[in-house]
Amino acid sequence: MLKKNYKEVEETEAVLADGTKVDGIYIRWLIDEKIGAKNFAMRRIEVKPGQKVPLHNHPEDHEIYVLSGKGKFYNDKEEDEIASEGDFVYIPPNEKHGIDNLGKDDLVFLCLIPYLRK
Amino acid sequence: MLKKNYKEVEETEAVLADGTKVDGIYIRWLIDEKIGAKNFAMRRIEVKPGQKVPLHNHPEDHEIYVLSGKGKFYNDKEEDEIASEGDFVYIPPNEKHGIDNLGKDDLVFLCLIPYLRK
Repeated sequence: MLKKNYKEVEETEAVLADGTKVDGIYIRWLIDEKIGAKNFAMRRIEVKPGQKVPLHNHPEDHEIYVLSGKGKFYNDKEEDEIASEGDFVYIPPNEKHGIDNLGKDDLVFLCLIPYLRK
Repeated sequence: MLKKNYKEVEETEAVLADGTKVDGIYIRWLIDEKIGAKNFAMRRIEVKPGQKVPLHNHPEDHEIYVLSGKGKFYNDKEEDEIASEGDFVYIPPNEKHGIDNLGKDDLVFLCLIPYLRK
């Protein structure tokens, strides 16, 4: 068993799966392969006010739970959703998705992603 | 893409993997196979004050993030940890684990569990 606070985990600037750096997005890998989790990883992501994660996609699905702030989660099929504390979002594998921080505060959410077996 | 609030999901009384019912523990399966998530499930669990999840184990690991309240997470190897908002806990596969609500308020946490491929 391992327990920590998220603040004990190093925060880094987010990089998309294709290597694109995105400004104003910070990520902490709370639970991942490094500590022995082989099935999926728990990340805590902060999007600063006015910042956005551009549309991108990958084979991994996302399970998201919003901790604070207010954001728009959208895809390329003209679907968009406003989410805030207590809302969750499921993004299926390969679906293009983007996230905009619409509020004056940080948008903070957990975003979990599987380790797909080859 | 699917977005909901946790309150839109039905709350049920928790049942352990071996079929044991536990009092004062409520669970919502926020993201699961029913909505197409094939890799892992996101559950939101509330443990009422004074209530506990007894020691039990299973092949699935747990990734836990505490949303509110204060709880003791422990195993059968004399390890125990007090966790509250912003703390996360990783419980490896097959490790016996139990959870006690130590506070006056509900202990609320997300607990994610993989769908293991046979």
